Amino acid sequence: MSADFRLKNPEDYDKWYGWKHTNPQLLKEAAYGLPELHREEIKGARLVACPGCMATATILPLAPAIKAGFVEENHIVADVKIGSSGGGSKPTIASHHPERFGGVRPYKVATHRHVAEVEQELNALSSEPVTVAFTPHAVNMVRGILSTVHTFTKTPLTSKDLWKALRSTYEGEPFIRFVKYQKGPYQLPDPKVTLGTNFCDVGFELDPRTNRLLLFGAIDNMVKGASGQGVQCLNIMMGIDEETALKSAGFHPM
Amino acid sequence: MSADFRLKNPEDYDKWYGWKHTNPQLLKEAAYGLPELHREEIKGARLVACPGCMATATILPLAPAIKAGFVEENHIVADVKIGSSGGGSKPTIASHHPERFGGVRPYKVATHRHVAEVEQELNALSSEPVTVAFTPHAVNMVRGILSTVHTFTKTPLTSKDLWKALRSTYEGEPFIRFVKYQKGPYQLPDPKVTLGTNFCDVGFELDPRTNRLLLFGAIDNMVKGASGQGVQCLNIMMGIDEETALKSAGFHPM
Amino acid sequence: MSADFRLKNPEDYDKWYGWKHTNPQLLKEAAYGLPELHREEIKGARLVACPGCMATATILPLAPAIKAGFVEENHIVADVKIGSSGGGSKPTIASHHPERFGGVRPYKVATHRHVAEVEQELNALSSEPVTVAFTPHAVNMVRGILSTVHTFTKTPLTSKDLWKALRSTYEGEPFIRFVKYQKGPYQLPDPKVTLGTNFCDVGFELDPRTNRLLLFGAIDNMVKGASGQGVQCLNIMMGIDEETALKSAGFHPM
Amino acid sequence: MSADFRLKNPEDYDKWYGWKHTNPQLLKEAAYGLPELHREEIKGARLVACPGCMATATILPLAPAIKAGFVEENHIVADVKIGSSGGGSKPTIASHHPERFGGVRPYKVATHRHVAEVEQELNALSSEPVTVAFTPHAVNMVRGILSTVHTFTKTPLTSKDLWKALRSTYEGEPFIRFVKYQKGPYQLPDPKVTLGTNFCDVGFELDPRTNRLLLFGAIDNMVKGASGQGVQCLNIMMGIDEETALKSAGFHPM
Repeated sequence: MSADFRLKNPEDYDKWYGWKHTNPQLLKEAAYGLPELHREEIKGARLVACPGCMATATILPLAPAIKAGFVEENHIVADVKIGSSGGGSKPTIASHHPERFGGVRPYKVATHRHVAEVEQELNALSSEPVTVAFTPHAVNMVRGILSTVHTFTKTPLTSKDLWKALRSTYEGEPFIRFVKYQKGPYQLPDPKVTLGTNFCDVGFELDPRTNRLLLFGAIDNMVKGASGQGVQCLNIMMGIDEETALKSAGFHPM
Repeated sequence: MSADFRLKNPEDYDKWYGWKHTNPQLLKEAAYGLPELHREEIKGARLVACPGCMATATILPLAPAIKAGFVEENHIVADVKIGSSGGGSKPTIASHHPERFGGVRPYKVATHRHVAEVEQELNALSSEPVTVAFTPHAVNMVRGILSTVHTFTKTPLTSKDLWKALRSTYEGEPFIRFVKYQKGPYQLPDPKVTLGTNFCDVGFELDPRTNRLLLFGAIDNMVKGASGQGVQCLNIMMGIDEETALKSAGFHPM
Repeated sequence: MSADFRLKNPEDYDKWYGWKHTNPQLLKEAAYGLPELHREEIKGARLVACPGCMATATILPLAPAIKAGFVEENHIVADVKIGSSGGGSKPTIASHHPERFGGVRPYKVATHRHVAEVEQELNALSSEPVTVAFTPHAVNMVRGILSTVHTFTKTPLTSKDLWKALRSTYEGEPFIRFVKYQKGPYQLPDPKVTLGTNFCDVGFELDPRTNRLLLFGAIDNMVKGASGQGVQCLNIMMGIDEETALKSAGFHPM
Repeated sequence: MSADFRLKNPEDYDKWYGWKHTNPQLLKEAAYGLPELHREEIKGARLVACPGCMATATILPLAPAIKAGFVEENHIVADVKIGSSGGGSKPTIASHHPERFGGVRPYKVATHRHVAEVEQELNALSSEPVTVAFTPHAVNMVRGILSTVHTFTKTPLTSKDLWKALRSTYEGEPFIRFVKYQKGPYQLPDPKVTLGTNFCDVGFELDPRTNRLLLFGAIDNMVKGASGQGVQCLNIMMGIDEETALKSAGFHPM
């Protein structure tokens, strides 16, 4: 579950984590534990490195658009909103309820470590080099992540193009839900409705006026962003039903 | 306080609001009630149109960078986070506490009406046409707005460049605070510490790796985003101390 | 799940609900669907009336003390704290997020309908007539109920007396957890740690200085306070494992 | 502002605080800084000890009923709900946002130190010895206290009796508001509408069915429960307008 084997390039540990990897020979062997992109590798792997929570919520909505070459690879912005459980279990002044409650706090706005794995995974899908500008914000909830990914299209796109790209990447995926409705309070992904589940809700919106394609990924950081994804990978490694122990539909309202 | 006289171009009402303006001759006369940009006009105005709340939080951090020509005018993204009071006083299923609490809900992600005034104001400061991609998100608080503005720099910038631009635009402004600290939980603007005040907290961060300049604007939508700004304009119109009735320093923690 | 068959005395419907029961002959037949007190009746019942959410959280901690005759039957106060989901799915000004968020709102402080079933059930266990002063408060959460029951002891009691009474009533109960720790943040029942589960957490504290016995009951109002309890009753009626479909251990933190 | 001079009896410090008072001779001299009960003493005092926050919210609603001898002095229950700012500024596991958010946590349910001053003040108004059973609960907000005081009446009372007692004690008090409405979401005191103000909102309800008189006190613990009350006392000591620097009407919604 840690970051120890997520990155393929040993130098990325120096750069993003500030330490030298002591077993670089294992990095090539390790599978990146995002089943939607690496199921076959995970099947045969001895070592699976589960992705970071914000990386999961960002890679999954972006992957189909990157694969399809839809967007400018050097103008990608992931604006992430995350609950307090993402900060770990150690109390600090930043996590103190009177300080943490009710605000919107940008942090590590240009230097978050999850960038390394996000770019690694997207570059593997792209013919052009991909850069992701990545900015987390702490918001007033305990669980949940929404990654709002702002991209600019190379050429005009239609909804049909997007649906096609999403379906071709995620058709049959047990833990991807497409969320795009015309009415009601949950028209696009909102982490609230993923709480307690292993789903990643993926949605999009086209904004032709600004040549923008908006992509959204919502997860429960403690499930699809952590242990749930770990269990999903384990199920795959063991050759058992991938949904074993993960069939929760979530609670609503929560 | 309404949108009725904010836009200069009568056709923008057809386009963004879906109705024809019945007194278009008044639009030219009305001052846009953002004192930091229009103090002189407000002084002599008979009609002052106070800005929208999200427009205030977006224009103020962006204006100095646009004026200075720092950023690509067609790759500007304003990712806005707003509390529930921004949705008005009428109960709906979207504002129902069990549905609204604890989530992050993107809404009107490409079509929010405040875009019209944001672009009008920034275009007035720019030699190149400015487009703003504008995406609001409802987060779990009552008051407060954070606008995170992601921009891409035309040429490499230094902190000094930014400080110079900010100071030349806002030096002496009674309701602009620059927020950029190296430690503590409030290193960049967070609406939490503006609650109950008329301040707009402005901050920035450079991300040379992605050629990005991040700009942040935080306000209390009910004060600097609404009635407080109205009082500030009224004080100016009446020729009295601009801070009259607005000297609250806010409460912390709240 | 409704209140239609919870009360045995048809006149209680006139008194507490303001309507005349149209099938009073069924009231005697219906079992009150609180398995911890009525498992045998539920087994053979054709009609099971599941308790109200606040009634469940109040009856369960009180029952052992009432059965044992520990407390003054006419000085019982249940001070209840409940989340917004308890108010139903219809938006009102009271449930509007800007009004509902962050407060503590007493409501129906002397006249809540759940009193009728609370007193009915406790009187069935008591040799003396029991009156319960019952006061709900809406607090800032979506799910969860804490009932703090303040009682006055007839004679001095020891912890051992209480443990004995609790065990003799609830030994082996699959959905009762006793919560009484000496350290950590969850020393007594808190609904937060019951969310998503069918547990009722029960705890107590003796306050010899004021001759008080404090009893606490915490539940998730949407599970043990509603559908979960319904499923538990159904499992009993069908003669299958009582925990079927209810084995969730909950999520933490939530 | 500390507890050092609140109690008159030096032995109460041994009993409730666990330390021996080093200047017991000053205790008689110190005024208890609750202006509504001790304005004359405060005027001439050299030393004023401002009350605890929960004590303020409990004494103020109770005082008129105790003075009038309305209620059984040995069956008084104060069930208090308080925000996280009441726990101080030091981060702990109990104040860690993921643990503190969204729950209802009973703590020090029989042993909170504020009991000492509550009983001291009420005994001074009563011909019979007064005992207060006092139970705090941490709820999901930052500021605010609601004290719900459950009492049992000696003889039947009418609303008129209560209004008379309240008015005779608090008529003309600048920081007491009576809150008792027939409709709307704020029919009884709720700390939400006191935030940022020095008001103590006081309300009551009669429950003849259970012989109960319910009393409610709501304050902002950081203002009327702390520094605001300090300023109020200082104003009195200095002989200036008692409302100086305290005229805030509060913000709504907050």
